[in-house]
Amino acid sequence: MNVLIAGRRRSFRTVSFDVRTNSVRLIDQRVLPHRFEVLATAHYRETAEAIRNMTVRGAGAIGATAGYGLAQGLRAFRGGDITRFRARLEEAYDTLKDARPTAVDPVNALNEVRAACNPDAPVKDQQSAALTAAERFATDNVEHCRRIGDHGAPLIRDGATVLTHCNAGWLAFVDIGSATAPMYAAQAQGRRFTVLCDETRPRCQGASLTAWELAQQGIDHRVIADNAAGWLMQQGRIDLVIVGADRVLGRTGEVANKIGTYTKAVLAKRHGIPFYVAIPLSTLDWNLRSGRDIPIEERNESEVLGAWGVPSSPARRPGKSKDPLTYVRIANPSSHAVNPGFDVTPPELITGIITPRGIFQPDQLQALRESAR
Amino acid sequence: MNVLIAGRRRSFRTVSFDVRTNSVRLIDQRVLPHRFEVLATAHYRETAEAIRNMTVRGAGAIGATAGYGLAQGLRAFRGGDITRFRARLEEAYDTLKDARPTAVDPVNALNEVRAACNPDAPVKDQQSAALTAAERFATDNVEHCRRIGDHGAPLIRDGATVLTHCNAGWLAFVDIGSATAPMYAAQAQGRRFTVLCDETRPRCQGASLTAWELAQQGIDHRVIADNAAGWLMQQGRIDLVIVGADRVLGRTGEVANKIGTYTKAVLAKRHGIPFYVAIPLSTLDWNLRSGRDIPIEERNESEVLGAWGVPSSPARRPGKSKDPLTYVRIANPSSHAVNPGFDVTPPELITGIITPRGIFQPDQLQALRESAR
Repeated sequence: MNVLIAGRRRSFRTVSFDVRTNSVRLIDQRVLPHRFEVLATAHYRETAEAIRNMTVRGAGAIGATAGYGLAQGLRAFRGGDITRFRARLEEAYDTLKDARPTAVDPVNALNEVRAACNPDAPVKDQQSAALTAAERFATDNVEHCRRIGDHGAPLIRDGATVLTHCNAGWLAFVDIGSATAPMYAAQAQGRRFTVLCDETRPRCQGASLTAWELAQQGIDHRVIADNAAGWLMQQGRIDLVIVGADRVLGRTGEVANKIGTYTKAVLAKRHGIPFYVAIPLSTLDWNLRSGRDIPIEERNESEVLGAWGVPSSPARRPGKSKDPLTYVRIANPSSHAVNPGFDVTPPELITGIITPRGIFQPDQLQALRESAR
Repeated sequence: MNVLIAGRRRSFRTVSFDVRTNSVRLIDQRVLPHRFEVLATAHYRETAEAIRNMTVRGAGAIGATAGYGLAQGLRAFRGGDITRFRARLEEAYDTLKDARPTAVDPVNALNEVRAACNPDAPVKDQQSAALTAAERFATDNVEHCRRIGDHGAPLIRDGATVLTHCNAGWLAFVDIGSATAPMYAAQAQGRRFTVLCDETRPRCQGASLTAWELAQQGIDHRVIADNAAGWLMQQGRIDLVIVGADRVLGRTGEVANKIGTYTKAVLAKRHGIPFYVAIPLSTLDWNLRSGRDIPIEERNESEVLGAWGVPSSPARRPGKSKDPLTYVRIANPSSHAVNPGFDVTPPELITGIITPRGIFQPDQLQALRESAR
């Protein structure tokens, strides 16, 4: 999607691969929205570290990064010794898989790249096949998001106000995004609308990443406190909710997503406002039988007790900053916090799941199970 | 209530009056929870400024401050000229009233002090009557909160987890608080329980002020993101909600309070969790006929786009800081925010209103109308 650099639009993907330098190129999400920087990792271990340290985050984005990282590791191999080459493959696979152990997309990407490497073929052929598979994973991710946009765009009427939570935008994928895909498609079709971005405490991905994305694309938007959506719904000022998901149970239609999603679904139901979840097929989980089995990560309390930002005057926009973001302690110094990272929304609160294959009722996802990607 | 200073408990009121120096003494809430400082205003204009600049906030606290400020202005008058004295009275009245134009408590306090000054009496008598009336307003406020505690304490069972939103604690009143009063009373009765403090973005009064208060009193508590309560309720981890209010319509039972209150009431209803609102009688509004008539203040967007705190390491508690709090910009620099300050909760979501005269159903508040304070 577009990034405004010195007033000019340039097109970027969140994750891409530079064949010439054998490096993975990542938009550095640790310094957004205050700086735009692209990090190029020179070694698969560096790529794994970029996943670990949140340079790149979001299901689709870390999946593609892991796939490219494995191809990168294999392409750096010198010589023709198949045994040593396969050992490198397993080593790189494990290193990249361990970088974010709870996520499912990196495992899918790594499996696809590994499966593409015929162990009986010459090293050069396996190297080439690995890169092709990694590129295909990334390209598929983009294509899936594009189709989510095609199916979801008609939901956004001209003049509508759409609420979204956290960041399920192009920064969380290779491009386009899931929850944002219908917005970008509706914009391309010439419709005008406003997006309200829940700031999404504690990490504020809505205020920082989603607002940044929408600003780059020229979509009208406002940031709101997570507390404000209920009242805005009561006032008739929200027409539609679209969020992403970290995991959707194909068997039950339950949706695990960033903490606060469930609250918005409860509020939308009360006010008769449609509540949609936009996901690529890779977010579907066919194993778990109940939302109670989804592990909910309890994250570090420092996220709730403070916030990261750029020191500035409340009255003015901050300028560019070369410094790392500053953490400020907000809460009482002697107090502790509880910080669940995700919640689970039951299917009865969900109007529809927007997928690359169309919009499904949450109890009709089984239809997607048999279909190929 | 107690304040821990160098490990020792000392007793303070949020607002008090020093007769000897004719000064109003205020706990400076702009630097809490990071520093404890008491500001003494030497002139009624300074007292008005302290209301305006949020040194003191909270309905009961600014009411008492305004009352003391008027007595202070009158006591500073020199000589016996009744006409000039009454002109001073009106000037001080207007200055203090204009300091926070939407609040109803300062007007009540100012009216009581003014009514106590018999315009035909000598200046000295009027000065003395003004101080007596201001002291009575403050004392009544404390007594009302104490009775709220008596009525509300039985709601908090041993082992319970209580959720509260924003700060309706002793810092918002002269002492004890409204939503916190049942907690302090239950603690005095020997019960053990945990309080969850919604951080209450954008100004984070829950994370800063309520958590600070509870820490000083030794009450077990945790700060949570505003996003987390829904999931915690779903998990059966919240037993009771108690909040304060900025205004309760006596005719309808509608409750105006800090933005996000309505959302918590909707969630509590869904999970069958009792939702109580604790208020002194001065918070009842007998004029408005509908919650739609309550003006909802749209506050400055900078509150949502950033946060105030003390720069520190996320891994460690910050030490004492002599510097003013630092504002950090969190949101995308070019984005704007919508920032409604309050919302209105309808009576069907409210289990009961805890008042100094007992707990009332929201549709039975009329019974309080005739009764004297």
